[in-house]
Amino acid sequence: MTSSTIDKLTELFNRFPGIGQRQAKRFVYFLLSQNDSFVKELINLVIQVKQETKYCVVCFRLSTKITDNACEICSDHKRDKTKLMIVAKDIDLENVEKSGVYDGCYFILGSLLPILEKNPEEKIRLRELIERIENLSTGNLAEIIIALSANTEGDYTAEYLGNYIASMAKDKQIKVSLLGRGLSTGTELEYSDSDTIRNALKNRQ
Amino acid sequence: MTSSTIDKLTELFNRFPGIGQRQAKRFVYFLLSQNDSFVKELINLVIQVKQETKYCVVCFRLSTKITDNACEICSDHKRDKTKLMIVAKDIDLENVEKSGVYDGCYFILGSLLPILEKNPEEKIRLRELIERIENLSTGNLAEIIIALSANTEGDYTAEYLGNYIASMAKDKQIKVSLLGRGLSTGTELEYSDSDTIRNALKNRQ
Amino acid sequence: MTSSTIDKLTELFNRFPGIGQRQAKRFVYFLLSQNDSFVKELINLVIQVKQETKYCVVCFRLSTKITDNACEICSDHKRDKTKLMIVAKDIDLENVEKSGVYDGCYFILGSLLPILEKNPEEKIRLRELIERIENLSTGNLAEIIIALSANTEGDYTAEYLGNYIASMAKDKQIKVSLLGRGLSTGTELEYSDSDTIRNALKNRQ
Amino acid sequence: MTSSTIDKLTELFNRFPGIGQRQAKRFVYFLLSQNDSFVKELINLVIQVKQETKYCVVCFRLSTKITDNACEICSDHKRDKTKLMIVAKDIDLENVEKSGVYDGCYFILGSLLPILEKNPEEKIRLRELIERIENLSTGNLAEIIIALSANTEGDYTAEYLGNYIASMAKDKQIKVSLLGRGLSTGTELEYSDSDTIRNALKNRQ
Repeated sequence: MTSSTIDKLTELFNRFPGIGQRQAKRFVYFLLSQNDSFVKELINLVIQVKQETKYCVVCFRLSTKITDNACEICSDHKRDKTKLMIVAKDIDLENVEKSGVYDGCYFILGSLLPILEKNPEEKIRLRELIERIENLSTGNLAEIIIALSANTEGDYTAEYLGNYIASMAKDKQIKVSLLGRGLSTGTELEYSDSDTIRNALKNRQ
Repeated sequence: MTSSTIDKLTELFNRFPGIGQRQAKRFVYFLLSQNDSFVKELINLVIQVKQETKYCVVCFRLSTKITDNACEICSDHKRDKTKLMIVAKDIDLENVEKSGVYDGCYFILGSLLPILEKNPEEKIRLRELIERIENLSTGNLAEIIIALSANTEGDYTAEYLGNYIASMAKDKQIKVSLLGRGLSTGTELEYSDSDTIRNALKNRQ
Repeated sequence: MTSSTIDKLTELFNRFPGIGQRQAKRFVYFLLSQNDSFVKELINLVIQVKQETKYCVVCFRLSTKITDNACEICSDHKRDKTKLMIVAKDIDLENVEKSGVYDGCYFILGSLLPILEKNPEEKIRLRELIERIENLSTGNLAEIIIALSANTEGDYTAEYLGNYIASMAKDKQIKVSLLGRGLSTGTELEYSDSDTIRNALKNRQ
Repeated sequence: MTSSTIDKLTELFNRFPGIGQRQAKRFVYFLLSQNDSFVKELINLVIQVKQETKYCVVCFRLSTKITDNACEICSDHKRDKTKLMIVAKDIDLENVEKSGVYDGCYFILGSLLPILEKNPEEKIRLRELIERIENLSTGNLAEIIIALSANTEGDYTAEYLGNYIASMAKDKQIKVSLLGRGLSTGTELEYSDSDTIRNALKNRQ
């Protein structure tokens, strides 16, 4: 064995989101200080989660509860099939579900589209989105909600998607909407940027 | 002279918004390190701003440009008299003006209403607001926009105001609206609270 | 399988130092988004590091380079056996080694001693420390450097250790020293606390 | 009057240390919201502090308690005239005095010396320092303590001063010392930089 098993593991933890070199090394020493049963459980759960987790072929969500290739939301007959929400990532879907205010279907894009990306279809699931809309609209798909973050990439992706599905939506008489803009919880008027004020004013009610 | 002129001045700067003891003392030494002309200009401007600044009798804004008791916005014939925006503080008005998206009139409430305040009329300008609405509605006041911060006190104040002017607004057929809620600029879906998601979804368009 | 493999793994990551619920879940989705080879390497390294890492029976450091029960530092004949530095944790030793300014031996205490701890010997390696000093002093141990953090627990532990080894050190004519106190890199005089100024002045040179 | 008295005053507050455009404007509205007696007291104290504050001709400190051109510290017969501490700014002196651990004399340099400054004597009080040392050493000046911040400019200034006064100090047999380096209060060993560890180890005791 060479000298660097600790260094190699530090290097892997360093790739975890938001983890720097120093915290990565603390993770290694944390694991070393834990008893074997903790480490065994951790490893087993990582293996298990990778094995049990599959992409839902309908919404492309990663889920451990796939039945007949579909996740528990897509299999749920009580979900409203007339609404389709497009989100960028699994964790966005989780956050919307946690809010408990949406009962429609989802589609996971995979990520936001980098500005001026040359090959959009390699970065986000465009063909799959078209198929998804096709399948749903044989039912009664009435609305597609583009639910992306309110930042530059989110806006760029929303505009790209809007154009991409425009004629299809028009043909099938599907409404395409965007999440509302305005003051978010905690925003103080004094510190709001002009865009937020404009939106808050436009969307007043 | 006693020992404490520096301490006394530090104490006064300490009352400035957001300024602690240590920074207050740095202000004193900063002033001491400046030449006399800077200090003279500062004092003159403070005196001048206090003298020249008056409350506009129409919107209760503090302004240095009062003509016939009214500020430059209230005197401006091009401002839309059919819309009245109620804000808490002068600096909120400034921020809305900076955004350049509103061309109606204003009313400065004075502050937000503390939760469960026993004597609301001593904290915010309620009687003056009624008068303001009376005066404007002899014209064609069509809408009152309650434009307060999206926090607990802001929401409490908005609800209080809504109830307070409800029957008057109904009688005079004036619409009462609130600033739109939803994603504000920069908000990521992953980190949004449930309230913001609910509002963003409700106000989608 | 129940619904909670993702939740269970999130829960385990949540116990990692400095990791909250939300970041723990991001770790899970990060792992899910990685290909199998990354996950396999991670698991293998975790297993390997646990297997290969042993406590050095001399300094009680965790190391992957144990030969005849001793780590690479304790086995190194070029290290100065007349100096013993007591540190709280492995990562403190790593940081001292990184500085490259110390060529003596170490002893890992295990942690700092909580204030007013009833059973110190259950929290930190006290008996092992005595043994370590005994063994080294048959050689020419000349100095024990208590190298702990400059905070309340560090100072308490240092005082406790100082008393604990005082008579032994006196008998064997071993000097006991503490890390120097004063301005650390980047400290500005204006913002220094009184303790630091006192130490910086006392230790001026 | 033009439109900009508020803007002009905002601009002046903007020059205060650590104050941005937005907080500067809050200061203006804060003053406008205060009654006349507050503003009068503020102005009077600013005038008073400028009038009453003079440079001590001995240590070059700004003080409101100048008697015969010397500040209350320089006039105090109980202060130890064998020690002279050189600090960069008045506020450093204040912080040292607050710690209550020093009973010698001071000299205020004016600022730190920018790296590679071409005309040092225009930035810091070099000639005055020489005079100060001359005057004190006719008594029994035994030690000059260079007490500067532990950062790049502080170190550069300390080195410059050390060279500048070296031969004079040698002639007069005055010891020249620097503030001690090491762990400052609250420093954790795990997060210390190599320089601090080196100093803490070198200055152990």
